[in-house]
Amino acid sequence: MTANRPRIVLFAADHGVCAEGVSAYPQEVTAQMVMNFLRGGAAINAFARSGGIELKVVDIGVAASLPASDDLVARRVARGTRNFCQEPAMTEEQLMCALNAGIELALESAIAGCDLLGFGEMGIGNTTSASAIAAALTGNTPEAVVGCGAGADEACLARKRSAIRRALDLHADSLQDPLGILRCVGGLEIAAMCGFCFGAAARRVPVVTDGFIATSAAALAVHLSPSVSGYLFASHRSAEPGHAFFLSLLDQDPLLDLAMRLGEGTGAALAVKVIQAAVAAFTGMATFASAGVSNR
Amino acid sequence: MTANRPRIVLFAADHGVCAEGVSAYPQEVTAQMVMNFLRGGAAINAFARSGGIELKVVDIGVAASLPASDDLVARRVARGTRNFCQEPAMTEEQLMCALNAGIELALESAIAGCDLLGFGEMGIGNTTSASAIAAALTGNTPEAVVGCGAGADEACLARKRSAIRRALDLHADSLQDPLGILRCVGGLEIAAMCGFCFGAAARRVPVVTDGFIATSAAALAVHLSPSVSGYLFASHRSAEPGHAFFLSLLDQDPLLDLAMRLGEGTGAALAVKVIQAAVAAFTGMATFASAGVSNR
Repeated sequence: MTANRPRIVLFAADHGVCAEGVSAYPQEVTAQMVMNFLRGGAAINAFARSGGIELKVVDIGVAASLPASDDLVARRVARGTRNFCQEPAMTEEQLMCALNAGIELALESAIAGCDLLGFGEMGIGNTTSASAIAAALTGNTPEAVVGCGAGADEACLARKRSAIRRALDLHADSLQDPLGILRCVGGLEIAAMCGFCFGAAARRVPVVTDGFIATSAAALAVHLSPSVSGYLFASHRSAEPGHAFFLSLLDQDPLLDLAMRLGEGTGAALAVKVIQAAVAAFTGMATFASAGVSNR
Repeated sequence: MTANRPRIVLFAADHGVCAEGVSAYPQEVTAQMVMNFLRGGAAINAFARSGGIELKVVDIGVAASLPASDDLVARRVARGTRNFCQEPAMTEEQLMCALNAGIELALESAIAGCDLLGFGEMGIGNTTSASAIAAALTGNTPEAVVGCGAGADEACLARKRSAIRRALDLHADSLQDPLGILRCVGGLEIAAMCGFCFGAAARRVPVVTDGFIATSAAALAVHLSPSVSGYLFASHRSAEPGHAFFLSLLDQDPLLDLAMRLGEGTGAALAVKVIQAAVAAFTGMATFASAGVSNR
């Protein structure tokens, strides 16, 4: 058991539901933040540098042109999802492409020797998507699962709840199974993170979730394949209220509770350090006998 | 603001109150664990290695002969404290020597360039001492502040409560001020950790407490000099019940709550990683403007 080669994979994608005015920030912030990740200026960059954690940034569905970069994994499935208040967020084919990309990135990470994986996301509008998933998966109302995401005000919150309510009505017939939920109200980054959980579990590499949106992907993965849960660590308890529903589905107590609500894999990065310490204790400690300590 | 040179100082000492049968382990375990620290076999060694944290082990009052070692800071004030059920745990002079040793070790650490300090302890019997401090400082009963320490059973717990009750009676007149408490029912490592808080604060270096016993020292330091609290971080919430009383005196929410109860600075070591990440975010992140991110 080792945890010397941690890697966090960060999936970025845009969301058609932004057209409903559900976010405090304009959609172009997704691409701007991807550029910020590539320049090393975001919180996750600081956490990863501080923690000696490798970071991979994946464009799985950003709706803007991004310059080619050795540091950006270009796996774009579409220029964002469709507006799920009007039609399914993605096609069957897009869903499979995004899931596969996530699986492949986990397998590649394992083959590269990574022994502890984490994942995070960036996508303006994606708390609306994760809230819709929470409502569909747990049967809770939009009111119960919606929080202010990246700083939504009251009017914005009302639009979020309304968008989710309309989407649950529109797609009711398709929301009976996890793949239907993912396709109709999910996001490309959420599908990729779901696949990432499969890939990590398939290679028996422990994988650390992040906050609300990342954990929506983990919850879907465990619904689809319960054995994934043995490889999952819940990193932190997000301040976003819907997170608790996913943690309870996963039956996991997160390692940290620091009132963070940023996403980007920031919770995963902190939890990686705790897990590394635990692994070091399991593998590097003397026993009472070998240390010559008197037992009771 | 930097946190690149973390150091944890581990203070070991013995306790005369062990004669009352208050611990599940024999007193010689203190020295045996010091040897284990020096060989790198304890949990704190694993955590420190995993986290890139420098560790200093200080003999401030072990009751057994220890071999000279470059890795052991020899600052022994006495061969353990006296049994505080019969007399004050230490003399005025011993108290001052232990406090001074702690102050000096913090000053030396700051001069050596350490920019983030933590402290921990090893001392069979020292949860009895910390529980007595909690009772004396907060006015709570021995019943409320006593926990099972390193695995005390019911009979052992009863002896712990009884020892504390008798000590509170015997020293009632001297327990009106923090120095009196420290001298009568404290420990040499607790006095040294109290001094360590002073030294760190005097040099304006942030200092991370550990569990129940370490936090008893921090609480006494803040009682003696309230300005110390601005430099203190509470690392974790120990599973030892008395810890909550000290955290509440300090008015601090700990960073972690992992049901740990080991001491040795293990909680401090984990918290150091969280604090380093926070400092990295404060000092290494782009602003919205510098990253070209659209504001609302």
